[in-house]
Order: sequence, then C-alpha cells, then structure tokens
Amino acid sequence: MHIPSLIERKREGGSLSDGEIRDLIEAFTAGDMPDYQMSALAMAIYFQGMTAEETVSLTRAMLESGESLSYPDTAPRVVDKHSTGGVGDKVSLILAPLLACDELWVPMISGRGLGITGGTLDKLESIPGFRVGLSEDEAMKQLEEIGVVMIGQTAAICPADKKLYALRDVTATVPSQPLIVASIMSKKLAESLDALVLDVKYGRGAFMKTKTEAESLGEMMREVGMMMGVETSVCYHTMDEPLGCAVGNALEVKESIDALQGKGPNDLREVTLTLAEKVSTVGRSQLEEWLDDGSAYDMFLKVVQCQGGDAESIPNFGAVHSAPVIRDVPSPASGKVEIVDADTVGRASLALGAGRNRAEDAVDFSVGFDHLIKVGADVKSGDLIAKIHARTEEAAELAGKSFLEGFRCA
Amino acid sequence: MHIPSLIERKREGGSLSDGEIRDLIEAFTAGDMPDYQMSALAMAIYFQGMTAEETVSLTRAMLESGESLSYPDTAPRVVDKHSTGGVGDKVSLILAPLLACDELWVPMISGRGLGITGGTLDKLESIPGFRVGLSEDEAMKQLEEIGVVMIGQTAAICPADKKLYALRDVTATVPSQPLIVASIMSKKLAESLDALVLDVKYGRGAFMKTKTEAESLGEMMREVGMMMGVETSVCYHTMDEPLGCAVGNALEVKESIDALQGKGPNDLREVTLTLAEKVSTVGRSQLEEWLDDGSAYDMFLKVVQCQGGDAESIPNFGAVHSAPVIRDVPSPASGKVEIVDADTVGRASLALGAGRNRAEDAVDFSVGFDHLIKVGADVKSGDLIAKIHARTEEAAELAGKSFLEGFRCA
Repeated sequence: MHIPSLIERKREGGSLSDGEIRDLIEAFTAGDMPDYQMSALAMAIYFQGMTAEETVSLTRAMLESGESLSYPDTAPRVVDKHSTGGVGDKVSLILAPLLACDELWVPMISGRGLGITGGTLDKLESIPGFRVGLSEDEAMKQLEEIGVVMIGQTAAICPADKKLYALRDVTATVPSQPLIVASIMSKKLAESLDALVLDVKYGRGAFMKTKTEAESLGEMMREVGMMMGVETSVCYHTMDEPLGCAVGNALEVKESIDALQGKGPNDLREVTLTLAEKVSTVGRSQLEEWLDDGSAYDMFLKVVQCQGGDAESIPNFGAVHSAPVIRDVPSPASGKVEIVDADTVGRASLALGAGRNRAEDAVDFSVGFDHLIKVGADVKSGDLIAKIHARTEEAAELAGKSFLEGFRCA
Repeated sequence: MHIPSLIERKREGGSLSDGEIRDLIEAFTAGDMPDYQMSALAMAIYFQGMTAEETVSLTRAMLESGESLSYPDTAPRVVDKHSTGGVGDKVSLILAPLLACDELWVPMISGRGLGITGGTLDKLESIPGFRVGLSEDEAMKQLEEIGVVMIGQTAAICPADKKLYALRDVTATVPSQPLIVASIMSKKLAESLDALVLDVKYGRGAFMKTKTEAESLGEMMREVGMMMGVETSVCYHTMDEPLGCAVGNALEVKESIDALQGKGPNDLREVTLTLAEKVSTVGRSQLEEWLDDGSAYDMFLKVVQCQGGDAESIPNFGAVHSAPVIRDVPSPASGKVEIVDADTVGRASLALGAGRNRAEDAVDFSVGFDHLIKVGADVKSGDLIAKIHARTEEAAELAGKSFLEGFRCA
C-alpha cells in the first residue's frame, strides 16, 4: 500500500476499495500510518466525499478496529437511538427506560457535551453517585437484570474512531458527511443492535441548518445501517428552539424526571414517543401508558440505583443542585412568541458554564435555563419567559442579554 | 492563534492574513504546529488556492524562516534563472557561465533530479571531483573571484520549505500552484537577486500539460517576484520532445560542453539565449559571441576548477563515463519525425538508472540517451534515431522498446 497514491486518488475524486480502506484504518490504528497522512486524507474526503460503499467500508473498518458487545442467545431484541445533537435534547434519559418497559435490551452508549450540544453522560453525572464508566461485565449484568444500561464509550470500542475523531477535531475535518456517518454508525454498530432509530436534527441550534442537509446525512446513515444488517429508521426534527423548557445538566434531568412521570413539555414527550415507536414492539398508546402510569419512571429509578446513583435524590431533584443566582427574564414585549433561538440559548448556557468549549473542560451541573417560553405562546410584556441559573450576578446579567437577542415576539 | 480555525477558514475558501501565515510558518518550522495540521492545511490550499497576497505572504514567511545571501556593496547585478523542469534540460550548465561573461554575479542554487526531471547537481557531480556542497563563505569567495557559483541548497536557506516540501511529498499535496510558487520563489529570493528569469515548461514531458496552466503558474511567480522587489521575467517553452539530443547526467554534461563552445543542438542554444537575454545587460549578438568565441566555455572551466572538479576531463568528457552497453536505435519507418515523446524518454532514462524514483536513490552518471532525433527531421527506415547507454543488454532492450513507443514519423 502506497499511502500518498491513495490520498491522491481520493483528492482527484476517485474511490478507495474496501480492502484499501481497511488497510488504511488498520495502519492508522496501529500507528503505522502517520497522523499527517490521515489528516490530509480526511481533508481530501471533506472536499471529494465518499460513495455509500466507501462509507460502509469505513464504518466497518472502524467497527472492526475494536470489540463489539455480544449477548447471550436468550437476549431479547436489542435497540438504541442516536441523536445528532441539539440544545435541550434530553430524550435519551426518558427513552432508554421507556424502551426497557417493553422488555427490550437498551445498551445505550452516549457521549459528553461539546460546544452548544449537551451530553447524556454529563446529565447523568449530575445525579449524585451515578457511574457511567461501567465495565462490559457490569453493563451486561445490568442488561440481564433490568434491560437497560447507560454508559460511556469504552476504550475497547472503535479505537480507530477515537483516534480519528481526535485528529479531525484539531484539523478542521469534523464536518464531513461520510466521516460523521462512519463515526456515529461504527460506535452504534458496536452495540450489536437489532434495531436503531436515528434522530437527525436541523435548524438554528443543530449542526445542520437545512432539512435537505439533514436528509442527506440521515439517508446515508440509514443506508449504512441497513447494509450492516441493522433495522435502521430515521426521524427528522427541527431544532430551532430548545427541546423542552430546560437547558443545562441538572435542569434537564429535572425535566426528564417530570417527563418520565407523564408530565413535562409536550414537544419533549412527542419526540420521545415518535422515536420509541420506531424500535419498540408495542404501539404509541402503550408507550404513553408507561409514561403516565409511572412504569418508565420506576425503570429510571432502577437504572439510577443499579449504576450507583442516589435514587432518593430523584423525587426532589430540583434541590440537589442549586445555582447561587437565579434570575427571572421578563418578556420585553407583548405578542405571540416567534423565535426562541436554540443557538443563542445554547451559547448562553455554554457561557454560564453548563457546557464545554474543549473536551477537557469541566461542566457546572447547576447552571443553565429553565421555564423557557415556547414558540407560539402568547405573552404579555413582563411575563416570565425564562429563568437563568448562574454562578454570579454578572454571568446572569450577560446570559439575560444574550437570551433576549435570540427572542422575538410580535 | 487557534490553528484549526485558520485551517477551517481556508477550507471554506477564505483568506489568511499576512500575520497569520507568518505565525503558521514560524510555528511549523519551530515544531510548534504539528505536521498533521500543516498537511490538512496544505490539502485545503490544494482545493481552495491562495490569493496573490497570500502567496506573497507564504513566500516571504518561508524565505524569512532562514537566511538569505548577502553581498558587498560593490557587488554587480545579481541574477539567476529557474526552470520548472523537463527532460534533457541542461540549460543551467550553459547559462550560468554565459551570464558570468557579462560580469554579472550568478549565485545559482539548484536541486537534484526526481522522477523524469533531471537535476543540475547530479549532472555537475558527474564531473570527477566537482563539489556542489560549498559553504556560504566559499560560495561568496568564488563569486568575488569569477562571478558564478553552482551549488545545492544549504540547511540555512528556507528550512520551512525543506520541511513543508518533505511533508507535501508524502501527503499528496505537491501539485498546488500557490505552494509550488512559494517553494520555488522563496528559495530563489534567498539568493537576494536583482533579476530572475523563469523558464516555465509545458507539454508531454513537463509537470504542466497545457500552456494555460503554465501561464497561470508563471504569472503568479512573476507577480510574487515583482512584489518582493525582484525584476522577474517569465519565458514559456514547450517540453514535448527532450531539450537537445541527450538525456542522462554525463551525456547532458557532454552536450553542454559542446553548447558552451557554440556547437550542440539548436533548440538548446535557442532556449539558453532567450533566457540569458532577459537578465543580462548585453544583447543577443554579444551573448552568441561569448558562446562562439570560447568565453563561456572558459568560464565553465573556471567553475569546474574552483569547485574542485577535474578541468582536464572536460575537453574529452565523453570518455569519462562509459556505459557497458551502447546500442543504436534505428528508425522503424521513413518520413518526417512527428513525436519524440519527452515523457517516454524521461521514463526510459529513469528506468536505465539515470534518475531517481525516491530522493534517497543513487543515480548512474553514464546511462541515458544521446543522438536523439529531433521532431521535424526527415528519416529513412534504419536511420539512427537514438543511442542508448545502458548497464545491461536487457536494460538497453527495454529502453529501446520504450523509446519506440514514444516515437512517431509519417
């Protein structure tokens, strides 16, 4: 294999064979292909793209760079979902226990927040004692016991992806559709799923701004999933305003706890049910029942308990993390709410300390927004349109100003 | 400076400022910017190009990464030429002594051959004892003495270019016009020239296949040279057939020795005079006189002597290197010669051992082609159309077959 010739072929718009892609990823993972060649190749892929076949090859090569989960023959249907990320998206926390009520297995492997996008692991860790770093044995035991486990990526899963993502992050080669697809799908395929539902977001607060872009990505992910033998569905959701009424780690957990008991915002419930329907064996009414009768909530308590979390903190979770400054934002005008800009809220929340600018940053569980007004609501001047949870008066002041820049009613 | 943001800006087609480019090159040269970021940036530049301003900034940054030659106040006009490279291009060997006859200073820094393109240093080294690795002091002393010195790049000149070129070579980012321009011009500008003439080749045996491409590169180099305060001229020459009638190191030196005495092929003399006119203070007739009256030849002998070469070998240079096998190639047909493909001859010569596939390969001075027939000549079947100088019968056989594949008469 002469690596510069392969980079050149891709640079000129040609295709790489399955064997070539496997050899490249093997060499890269083993440290035999230097980072400087991989970053040049990634940039060439950014400009020239990859065919569906190449994307499948890349996904498989990254999957096979590490281990996959394996289940006993007696295991039920194994399902999971992946979201491309948005502001206030806490669906995983509700969906995983809900699907476990259907006696499915949900081996949910999630990530941490970066930029304006929150991360399931950060949210879960706002529950005192909650451990996301289970061993594979522990995870498997918990699946046997309650059918659901919520953990972080282990070193054994897709090491090629871990290494490639770190390189893309510092070489401006993250936003390449085939590389995104292979990164997402290799990790999800390592869960050895029967069915996967993808939640592809588009709009102001999403990575993709238009439905067309979202559909292009979603269709490629679906194709790769199907070619790899997983029943893959795709849902598309707008991310113009935050999902639900809370943004920030503990504030989102609080809202999820409400939603798990049939309360909480409609949009959050809707998205959760839409995704759940795609992979569950039961219909919507049964799923709604599990939310409304406390079954999903009970399952969530079991998850918390099994993973070392303080289940007693859950019923009154709002008291666990309390930001030093809580400030109301009154509406500056009267009328129908037209814009609550997800990107603005995401950035303001990041600035408050709820998120990370860099992977090594720490997050503050207590800060963020709640009581966010929803688009379409009628407000009067002075009505509460958001509550800011901040570390200082200054931070709250800034967040309030930012929030209003992304707010419009008329 | 956040390097990924700069790579991203270039990736999206934006421009980098003079300060940003300088900072990037400084960081890269110092080892503070990792190779994997530079190779991603180089690939982004391959796709998005650079403005003239950016190219000037890059050239200057690479120039300033090292030292430049400096001359006493009493120095005359300092000139040089650069060729983009071709097959049989031995013009430097004739031009440098010729320009020194005009009492100009010619501090010619050349390179080695790679692929089908020969290198002036390799050719000079076929002269027994000839040293191309002079120190700057030695070079300066020789300039004072005879006005011309022919050497290789020193470690002190453009270290950024040296490092960047090595990286481009293994990341498929060599053929990017702004990177080529900055690489060539930074090294030439380090010679602190008053005037520079560029010989841009296009055609079968050149890096650029069309005149349009050649003009685009030439114009950008001229612009950069002028913006850096050097009187820069550009000449365009076709490289469809080899220049002159010899290809291969010692064979080309032999032909150059002829040309320095007013003999040798017309095309070689024409190109040499055309380039010399652009930077000399005298007209064509004086230049022709220096070739015809032995002045240029005497100057060449001085160069050989000053740089440790065996001047006594020059008058009968054909006897210095003798290939074990010398074979005539007879014309397979009668008619007017239409094609003597420079690329084919270049590759065959490379296969004979005259050139390098990799920078670390050694070259065989004795092998190659001479007595090459010229396009436009009338030949009869069986007439001599080339002589092959080879190490073995097998190699000669192969070279003959290859040669005929690139030969056409009708």
